Amino acid sequence: MEQLLEAVERLYPDMVGWRRYLHQHPELSYCEKETAIFVARKLREWGLEVQTGVGGHGVVARLKGNGSGPTVALRADMDALPIQDEKLTEYASKAKGIMHACGHDAHTSTLLGVAKAMSEHRSLLKGDVVFLFQHAEELSPGGANSMIEAGALDGVDYVYGIHLWTPLPVGTAYSRSGAMMAAADEFEITVTGKGGHGGLPHETVDSIVTASQLVVNLQTIVSRNVSPTEPCVVSVGSFHSGTSFNVIAETAALTGTVRTFDPELRMEVKKRVEEVVEHTCHMAGADYKVDYKLGYPPVINHDAEVERFFRAGSKVVPCEPLALVMAGEDFSYYLHHRKGCFMFVGAGNKEKGIIYPHHHPRFDIDETSMLHAARLFVSMVMDCQKG
Amino acid sequence: MEQLLEAVERLYPDMVGWRRYLHQHPELSYCEKETAIFVARKLREWGLEVQTGVGGHGVVARLKGNGSGPTVALRADMDALPIQDEKLTEYASKAKGIMHACGHDAHTSTLLGVAKAMSEHRSLLKGDVVFLFQHAEELSPGGANSMIEAGALDGVDYVYGIHLWTPLPVGTAYSRSGAMMAAADEFEITVTGKGGHGGLPHETVDSIVTASQLVVNLQTIVSRNVSPTEPCVVSVGSFHSGTSFNVIAETAALTGTVRTFDPELRMEVKKRVEEVVEHTCHMAGADYKVDYKLGYPPVINHDAEVERFFRAGSKVVPCEPLALVMAGEDFSYYLHHRKGCFMFVGAGNKEKGIIYPHHHPRFDIDETSMLHAARLFVSMVMDCQKG
Amino acid sequence: MEQLLEAVERLYPDMVGWRRYLHQHPELSYCEKETAIFVARKLREWGLEVQTGVGGHGVVARLKGNGSGPTVALRADMDALPIQDEKLTEYASKAKGIMHACGHDAHTSTLLGVAKAMSEHRSLLKGDVVFLFQHAEELSPGGANSMIEAGALDGVDYVYGIHLWTPLPVGTAYSRSGAMMAAADEFEITVTGKGGHGGLPHETVDSIVTASQLVVNLQTIVSRNVSPTEPCVVSVGSFHSGTSFNVIAETAALTGTVRTFDPELRMEVKKRVEEVVEHTCHMAGADYKVDYKLGYPPVINHDAEVERFFRAGSKVVPCEPLALVMAGEDFSYYLHHRKGCFMFVGAGNKEKGIIYPHHHPRFDIDETSMLHAARLFVSMVMDCQKG
Amino acid sequence: MEQLLEAVERLYPDMVGWRRYLHQHPELSYCEKETAIFVARKLREWGLEVQTGVGGHGVVARLKGNGSGPTVALRADMDALPIQDEKLTEYASKAKGIMHACGHDAHTSTLLGVAKAMSEHRSLLKGDVVFLFQHAEELSPGGANSMIEAGALDGVDYVYGIHLWTPLPVGTAYSRSGAMMAAADEFEITVTGKGGHGGLPHETVDSIVTASQLVVNLQTIVSRNVSPTEPCVVSVGSFHSGTSFNVIAETAALTGTVRTFDPELRMEVKKRVEEVVEHTCHMAGADYKVDYKLGYPPVINHDAEVERFFRAGSKVVPCEPLALVMAGEDFSYYLHHRKGCFMFVGAGNKEKGIIYPHHHPRFDIDETSMLHAARLFVSMVMDCQKG
Repeated sequence: MEQLLEAVERLYPDMVGWRRYLHQHPELSYCEKETAIFVARKLREWGLEVQTGVGGHGVVARLKGNGSGPTVALRADMDALPIQDEKLTEYASKAKGIMHACGHDAHTSTLLGVAKAMSEHRSLLKGDVVFLFQHAEELSPGGANSMIEAGALDGVDYVYGIHLWTPLPVGTAYSRSGAMMAAADEFEITVTGKGGHGGLPHETVDSIVTASQLVVNLQTIVSRNVSPTEPCVVSVGSFHSGTSFNVIAETAALTGTVRTFDPELRMEVKKRVEEVVEHTCHMAGADYKVDYKLGYPPVINHDAEVERFFRAGSKVVPCEPLALVMAGEDFSYYLHHRKGCFMFVGAGNKEKGIIYPHHHPRFDIDETSMLHAARLFVSMVMDCQKG
Repeated sequence: MEQLLEAVERLYPDMVGWRRYLHQHPELSYCEKETAIFVARKLREWGLEVQTGVGGHGVVARLKGNGSGPTVALRADMDALPIQDEKLTEYASKAKGIMHACGHDAHTSTLLGVAKAMSEHRSLLKGDVVFLFQHAEELSPGGANSMIEAGALDGVDYVYGIHLWTPLPVGTAYSRSGAMMAAADEFEITVTGKGGHGGLPHETVDSIVTASQLVVNLQTIVSRNVSPTEPCVVSVGSFHSGTSFNVIAETAALTGTVRTFDPELRMEVKKRVEEVVEHTCHMAGADYKVDYKLGYPPVINHDAEVERFFRAGSKVVPCEPLALVMAGEDFSYYLHHRKGCFMFVGAGNKEKGIIYPHHHPRFDIDETSMLHAARLFVSMVMDCQKG
Repeated sequence: MEQLLEAVERLYPDMVGWRRYLHQHPELSYCEKETAIFVARKLREWGLEVQTGVGGHGVVARLKGNGSGPTVALRADMDALPIQDEKLTEYASKAKGIMHACGHDAHTSTLLGVAKAMSEHRSLLKGDVVFLFQHAEELSPGGANSMIEAGALDGVDYVYGIHLWTPLPVGTAYSRSGAMMAAADEFEITVTGKGGHGGLPHETVDSIVTASQLVVNLQTIVSRNVSPTEPCVVSVGSFHSGTSFNVIAETAALTGTVRTFDPELRMEVKKRVEEVVEHTCHMAGADYKVDYKLGYPPVINHDAEVERFFRAGSKVVPCEPLALVMAGEDFSYYLHHRKGCFMFVGAGNKEKGIIYPHHHPRFDIDETSMLHAARLFVSMVMDCQKG
Repeated sequence: MEQLLEAVERLYPDMVGWRRYLHQHPELSYCEKETAIFVARKLREWGLEVQTGVGGHGVVARLKGNGSGPTVALRADMDALPIQDEKLTEYASKAKGIMHACGHDAHTSTLLGVAKAMSEHRSLLKGDVVFLFQHAEELSPGGANSMIEAGALDGVDYVYGIHLWTPLPVGTAYSRSGAMMAAADEFEITVTGKGGHGGLPHETVDSIVTASQLVVNLQTIVSRNVSPTEPCVVSVGSFHSGTSFNVIAETAALTGTVRTFDPELRMEVKKRVEEVVEHTCHMAGADYKVDYKLGYPPVINHDAEVERFFRAGSKVVPCEPLALVMAGEDFSYYLHHRKGCFMFVGAGNKEKGIIYPHHHPRFDIDETSMLHAARLFVSMVMDCQKG
C-alpha cells in the first residue's frame, strides 16, 4: 500500500491541475459531454478499459487486478451547478452562470489520480477496481440509477464514494453507521382560489390567505406528527402570488423540500403534506394541485463497511463519526445494490478563508483535501482486497 | 331647464362620437396630453374661458352666467388604465396595453356635452358654471389635489361629480348621505429573515413562514379590532418570496390595500398593521420595513347636497340610495373644500351583454348612461341656481 | 294626550316603587311566577281584562277603547339574570345570585304605569290597547314566540316595545329603520383528538393545537367571507382543554356566538363555521361535533313605524337615530307578525355614576328614564289611534 | 457472584410480597413517611447502617465491604402518584386517589432484595455498597438533589439506577451512551387581554384568539428553530379560558412541557418560548406572564459505565441499546456528581395483559422484572469491585 500512497502523493500536482481545468470548464447536470471526454481520454491513455455513454454521460473504467480478490468500485460525480462564480481566483469558472460550486471537479480529479496511481501499480491489486465517473448527481432523477441499469455495478463486490465537505475542517475524514444523508423530496403546490377586487374579499377566494395558512399548518407536521427522535424537515422555499396590491390573487404557487431518513416516515410525511394541503384549501373553498416528487432515497451505509472505514481509513487519515447530514445524494442507489459506504473528507480551512458552504457563489475547497480523499480510497480498496 | 335638457338630448350623438374617439386613443394617468388638447380645443370653439395645464394636464373652463347665482363646478376625469383592451368593437383601444377600462372617456364626453349645451343657452344660467376636466384619477396622489392647489375651485360654491357604473343597471342614478366611497390606502411590507439551506432551518430565519404568519395575523384586525358596524377591509394582494424549492428565502415582499370610511379608524388600522408586522417579525427574529401610503380619503357627501340630488335629480332620472362602495375616488378632495356630492349613474345592461366590471379587459358601458348623466348634471346646476 | 301624559307623570313615584320592589325580588327566565302574579293582580285591580299563563308565565291584559281605532300592543319583559347583585343600594336584589341586571324590572313597571294611566282615561282611547308582560326574554327560545302562539297578538294591529339602555344618556329616545338588533346565534364545538404523553406528540392527535388553529381559522370568516358593509361577528367565548402540563389533551371544548343582521348571511356564516371546523379537524385527524343553535332572529323595524317614532315620539322626548346594536332580542318575533318597531330609551347618567353596562353586577338605571319611556308609549298609541 | 445471584433468586418471593404491600399503601411525593419507616426497619433488621430523613424522607443505608474496592451506590425511588387505581387485583391501592402507577414500589422492593442478599454475603463485597431510597422523584424539584446535598453520595465512587419499563418486554435490559432521558421543563402562561361583550370584539382584547395564535406560533420552535437532528418537544397540555359563549374572556391560562437533551438547546428553547409569548401578546395589546420552571436536567450516562452495563449486565440478562426516552428523571443529578449510568429493565408482557403505560390507572408490571433488575444491580456492583 505504501507504494500506492506514494504514487497518489506524487500525482497530487496533476490532480490540482485537472481540478483547476475542470473548474474553469464546468458543465451542468446531463450536459457533462466535454468532462466525460476529458476523463475517458486520460483513462484510456493510462491503459484502463473504458466505457463511455453509460446511462448518459457516465464513464466506467475497469482496471484488472490479479484476479484473486473482490472487485471494488469507486465513484466520483462530474456535474456542476447553475450558479455564477464570484471567486476572484484565476481558475474561476469561464462558463457564464455555471460553476463547480459543490466540488465535483475535485471528486473527478481525485478519482483520476487514484486511477492513474493504481494503473501504475496494477500488480498490487488482488482484484479488479472499477472507476465510476457519474453524471448528473445534482438533478433528480440523477445519473446513479441509469448507470446501474446500464451495468455499472456488474461484477462489483463493494462500492465507495467520497464527498469533499467544506463545513468540516481539512485533515479529517468522516462517516457513520446506518442512515447518513437524508432523503430529499420536493413538492410543488398550486392553490387556486377566485380572484377579485381587493376591497371586496367576500366575492373572492383569497389564495394568499389560504396559502399562508397552509405554510403555517405545514409546521405542525414536524412539531406534532413526527417522533422527536426522528430527524425531519418540511421547508417551503418559494411562495409566489399576485401582481397588484389591490387585487385579490387567484392563484398562489409554493415549492418546498422534505428531508427524512426513515423510509416509512418519508411516505407518512408525504401523506401528511397532501392532507394538510387538501383540508386547508377545501376549508377556504379553493382548489389545489400537489406535485410531490420523491427524490434520492437516504444514504444508508452498511455497518461492516463503516467499520472498515474506521479501521482502514484511520491508517491514512484521522477518521471521526459524522453527524446526520440533511442533504441528499444519489450514491444511495449504489448502496441499495452493493455493500459499501459513503464518506466525507473535510475540505474547509478558515485560516485560508475557505469558509463558503456548498452551492455558494464563492465556494472553494482546500485542495489538499483531494490528497486525503485519494489516500482514503486507496486504503479502502487495499483493505477489501487484502484477505 | 327644458331647453337645456333638449340641448343635451340633441347633442347625445356627438357625445357618443367623442367618447368613441377618446376610447380609441386612451392615455395613462399623468400622460393625458392629447386628451387635454382635444378637450380644450372644443371648449374654446364653444366660447368658454379655458385654462390648461392646471396642476398637470388638468383643464378648467368657465362659462359665465348672468351673475346673480352661485358658481357650480362639474368634474370629469380623463385618464385611462394599463390594461390591454380585449373588446371586439370597432371603437376598441388603438393603444397597446392602454384602455379606458373605467369609463373616464365617457365622463369627459358627457361633460363636454353639458358644456356645449350650456354654452348654447348661457342666458339660462344665473351663476357661473366651471367645468373641471381632471387628469390622473387612477393613480395616487391623483390630479384633484393639484388642480385645487392650482385654483380650480376658486370662486366655486358647489361641486358635483358623476361616475358611470356598470355593476348598476342603466336608467337610474344613485348617491348616499355621508360616507359613500372608501379611503383606499396601500402598504408594501418587506420581511427580512436569514436565508440558508432548506434542510437546515435552524440556521436561518424563515421569511416565508414569518410572512405567512403575518398574513394570517392581519386577519384579526378586521375580525377583532374593528367595530362590526364599521366597514373595513385589509387585503394582501401579492406575496413574493424565494427562488428555489430547497433554499430558505431571505426576504418576502408583500403588498396590500386597506379600505375604510371612518378617518379615525383609518389611522387606527394603519397603526394595527404596523404593530402586527413589528411583532410577527420580531417574534421570529426577522427585520421588516413597512411602507404605508395613505391614498385618497373617503368620499363624504354633504347631506344637503344629497337631498338636492334626490329632489332635483329625480326630476330627470330615477334616483335611489347607494350602498357603500369599497373603491376610492379623489373626488373626496373637492368635497373637503366645497359643498357638493358625488353620484353614480347606472351603465350596465345585461340584455346588451354589458356586464363586465370596471378595470376588466372587456369593460364597456351602455352609452345611453351618458345622456342620463348629462341630464343629472343639468338638473343639479339648475337647482343650485334657481333661487 | 295631555291628560294621559299628566297621568303617567303623576304615577311616576308608583312606577319607581314597583320597580324597586321587583328589583329586590328578581326571578330567572321561565321562573317569573311571583312577578306575573304581582303584575296580574295590579292590572285586575285597575279593571283590565287579564289573561295569565300565556305561553308560560306571560300575562296579557286588554283595555277596551271606544272601538273605532286600531288595536295597539305594548310589550315589557319580566325576567332577571343569574348574576350576583353587587350594588350597595337599599333596593339591591334579595335573591342570591339573581339580579335584574338588564332593566326588565323597569320595563315591567313602566308598562304598568302606562296601563294604569290609560285605565283611568279609557275614554281617550279610540281602539283597544293590549299590554304584553312577557316572560323569558333572556334565554332562548324565549317567551315571545310561545306567547304569540298562545294568541297574544290576536286582534292586534300594531306592536311596540322599549328597552331602557344605559350606554345611552337619559333624556333621549332612539330607533332606526330596518335592521336594528342582531341575530344572536350560539355554537358549541368539541374537538376530539387522541390523548397521550406530552413528550410523544407523534403518538397523539393534539386537540389543543387543532382547536387553536380552529380559533385562528374562524377569524377569516369575518375578514374574508363577509361583505365589509355587512355587520357580522364570530366570537369564541370559551376554550377548555387538558388537565396536566405534560399530557396531550384528548378533547377541547369551545363555545361562541355569531351576530348578524342579514338572514341570508346568517345561514352562510353557519355553513362557514361548520366547514372551518370540519376541515381544521380532519386536517389533523381529529373528530368533532358542532352544536349550532340559532337564537333570536334580528329585530327588523317597519319603516312606517319608525317614521311614526320620529314624528310622534319627538313630541314627548328628543328622538335620534340609533346605530346598529349587536345584541339580540326576541321582540323580533312580534315584528314578524305585526307592524311595529322597537325603541331604546337612554337610561345612563355619568353624573349620577350610572355607568355600568347591561349584565354588569353593578348595573342600575336612571329611573327617570321610565317616565320618558311611558310618555313614548303613550305618544305612539295616541298617534296610531288618532286617525 | 453466583452466590449473590442465587440469593436474590431465593429472595424473589419476598420482593414480590414487599412490592404488593407497598402497592396497597402508596404515598405521594414528599409524603413517603410510612414507606421510609418500612424500608428503614427492614434495612436495620438486616444489619445495615441506616440514616433516615436524608434530604426529606430519603433513606441511606451502607453495607461495609472488605475495604479494598470502590464504593458503589444503588438507587431506588419510593413515591407514588395522584391517580385512582383501576386495577382489579387484590393488591390494588387502598389509598383513594393515590397509586404506584410508575413502579417505584417495585424499585424499592428490588433494592431491598439486593440489600438483603448482599447483607447475607457481605464478605463477597470488596468495597462498600450504599443503598439510596429516594423520596419525591415524580415532583420537581425532586428528592435526588436534596439527598445529595445531605451527603448521600459522600464517599461514593459509582452510582447506578434502574427503571422498570412496561413499554419494553420483560426479559431484557437497556441503556445507551450519553443522553438517555430528556430534560423535562414546565411552563405556565397567562394571557391577559380585556374582557367584554361577545358582539363587540373591538372594545376588547380577545385572550382566546391571542392564546390560540400563541399555541400555533409555538409550533415553529420545533419546526424552524431546532436542528432536525436534535430531539425537542414543545407541548401545550392545557388551555383554559372563558365562562360564557357570548362574553369575550379576559384571561387565558396555558400550561405545557418542553423536552430536550442538549443543555444549550434547552436554554435556547426557553428563550424562544418567552419571545413567542411576548410578541404574540404584545401584537394583540395583551399582557402576559410566563412562569418557566426548569425541571430535571437530561440523564446523561457516562460512556465507560454504559460499556460496563453491556459487558457485565449481559452476563445476567440480555442487554440492548435503548432509544432516546422523552421522559425525565432526577437520577440525572447523581450523574452530575459521580460516574454511573441509568438502566431500563423491561417489565411489559402482552401475553399476561401487562400493556398499560406508566401513569395509567391500570398500570401494572410483570413482577419477574424485579428479579432481572436485582441480578443486574448485583452484576454491576461485582464488576465495579472485581478489580
